Amino acid sequence: MSVLIVGSTALDSIKTPKAENPRLLGGSASHAGVAASFYAPVNLVGVVGDDFPKKYIALYRKHGMDLAGLQIQPGKTFHWSGEYEVNMNNRRTLCTELGVFEKFNPELPAAYQTTPFVLLANIAPALQIHVLDQMRRPKFIAADTMDLWLNIAMNDLLKLLRRVDLFVLNDSEARQLAQEDNVVTAARKLHKLGPKYVIIKKGEHGSVLSSPKGLFIAPAFPLEKVVDPTGAGDSFVGGLMGYLASAKGNIETNLRRAIIHGSVVASFCCEGFGLSRTTKTTKAEINERVKRLEAMSKL
Amino acid sequence: MSVLIVGSTALDSIKTPKAENPRLLGGSASHAGVAASFYAPVNLVGVVGDDFPKKYIALYRKHGMDLAGLQIQPGKTFHWSGEYEVNMNNRRTLCTELGVFEKFNPELPAAYQTTPFVLLANIAPALQIHVLDQMRRPKFIAADTMDLWLNIAMNDLLKLLRRVDLFVLNDSEARQLAQEDNVVTAARKLHKLGPKYVIIKKGEHGSVLSSPKGLFIAPAFPLEKVVDPTGAGDSFVGGLMGYLASAKGNIETNLRRAIIHGSVVASFCCEGFGLSRTTKTTKAEINERVKRLEAMSKL
Repeated sequence: MSVLIVGSTALDSIKTPKAENPRLLGGSASHAGVAASFYAPVNLVGVVGDDFPKKYIALYRKHGMDLAGLQIQPGKTFHWSGEYEVNMNNRRTLCTELGVFEKFNPELPAAYQTTPFVLLANIAPALQIHVLDQMRRPKFIAADTMDLWLNIAMNDLLKLLRRVDLFVLNDSEARQLAQEDNVVTAARKLHKLGPKYVIIKKGEHGSVLSSPKGLFIAPAFPLEKVVDPTGAGDSFVGGLMGYLASAKGNIETNLRRAIIHGSVVASFCCEGFGLSRTTKTTKAEINERVKRLEAMSKL
Repeated sequence: MSVLIVGSTALDSIKTPKAENPRLLGGSASHAGVAASFYAPVNLVGVVGDDFPKKYIALYRKHGMDLAGLQIQPGKTFHWSGEYEVNMNNRRTLCTELGVFEKFNPELPAAYQTTPFVLLANIAPALQIHVLDQMRRPKFIAADTMDLWLNIAMNDLLKLLRRVDLFVLNDSEARQLAQEDNVVTAARKLHKLGPKYVIIKKGEHGSVLSSPKGLFIAPAFPLEKVVDPTGAGDSFVGGLMGYLASAKGNIETNLRRAIIHGSVVASFCCEGFGLSRTTKTTKAEINERVKRLEAMSKL
């Protein structure tokens, strides 16, 4: 089955202690879309300016993504630039130029409206809701977010959460939203806002799924070298949703393995700048790492 | 089989944002000894002053510990006091009074010298070596440490590491000792110092075992409430070694499950001040949590 993915489609300029890379393909929908494309057909929803490099359109196409929902507007593509510290965990935003993203109004092509799996990747909650309003009886809805929306769009986010099956956020966001320092207690509180499934991401420490069946503690794929973690969270949720859309059987049962797949796709993301490593990955490479990661957490 | 445990036997005064508890039973050997006692007979090696409360001796005995190696010297028992911050992860030492511990010279009773499993719990590496020198062909030797010894007794520690099978340390210590920020790479470097098995503890994020078979990523037991984490690392390694000593079959095979048991005993330790919760635990409670933790990491 296919996955509809809405989110940001951007150009990222990324500085690390070792290198500087201007205007890479980035954005939550780009990372999540490429990640999901290893498993299932992707319907992309986003906006770019008329400065958006053709090679990036070609890259989306190479991954078999349907681009009927990608608007190309006169003006500049959303541009983000950021810098990582030596430990590659802390980053700071150097600048954000919204460009055509500022007036983004996601309108879904008719063919998109019956997509069974919906991933509302990180973007303003009002836009995530607007996309959801256009969908007809999707099978499974996941939403990602970021701290910015907790700070400036809390009401929209709370409205959204009542309508999603799976909510994915990182540990500091979970603590902030639940106003609770303990991650397990925070997950319990987040269910009360709507989602049946909550995944709290902890970066290199893996993630925790909270579901009616209880907790699942998932490892991250251990990497010896992290080149650029930008988009790792988007890749995680993209790979996860792609796997879910491709897997037969019960979603609750498939979710644990989907998290392992998401973690593995995220690990490839971290090994190169922007999407450079992810786009070179093959399904065979992914499956090999999945096997290794499963072996690493098996008794 | 039985476990010989050497380490500190102390009185701990612990302050948290919610409570203050003076002169609790503490020290690495106390925590590790009680933890191991759920699985195997323990031969304790340590020193206390003549001020050491009789009720703590009774507590050791209640756990079936052999105290022939516990010296009672004229003077004061080692006293440590520390304070935890709100998040319960950061702590600072308020004072350390060595007392009789300053001149501790661990001499093993003859009956101890053939103990098959040896746990050199956290204590000066020179003392760990001195204990090892008195042992006759032990089956398996594990050593724990702390950042202090990396700073003031590195040469002794390096000498020790050439002689142990399993080295246990936390992530910041591993980074410091290996002079390597990445934990996976750090583990690989630590093997070169001697130990066949390396376990890097990551507190609430679990631990990683590095062995000839590869990595094992182990979860910590998720707790909603942490009362006092003092001694959790000692309980972890104590439970782990107790399990190993009690289990049949190959050590490499048993190590993964031993880590799960260690994590569970450590979780009980965190739920009360000092040893108050651990000593109330039953084997049935431990096994129930082990089952739950295994279920939480199973695909």
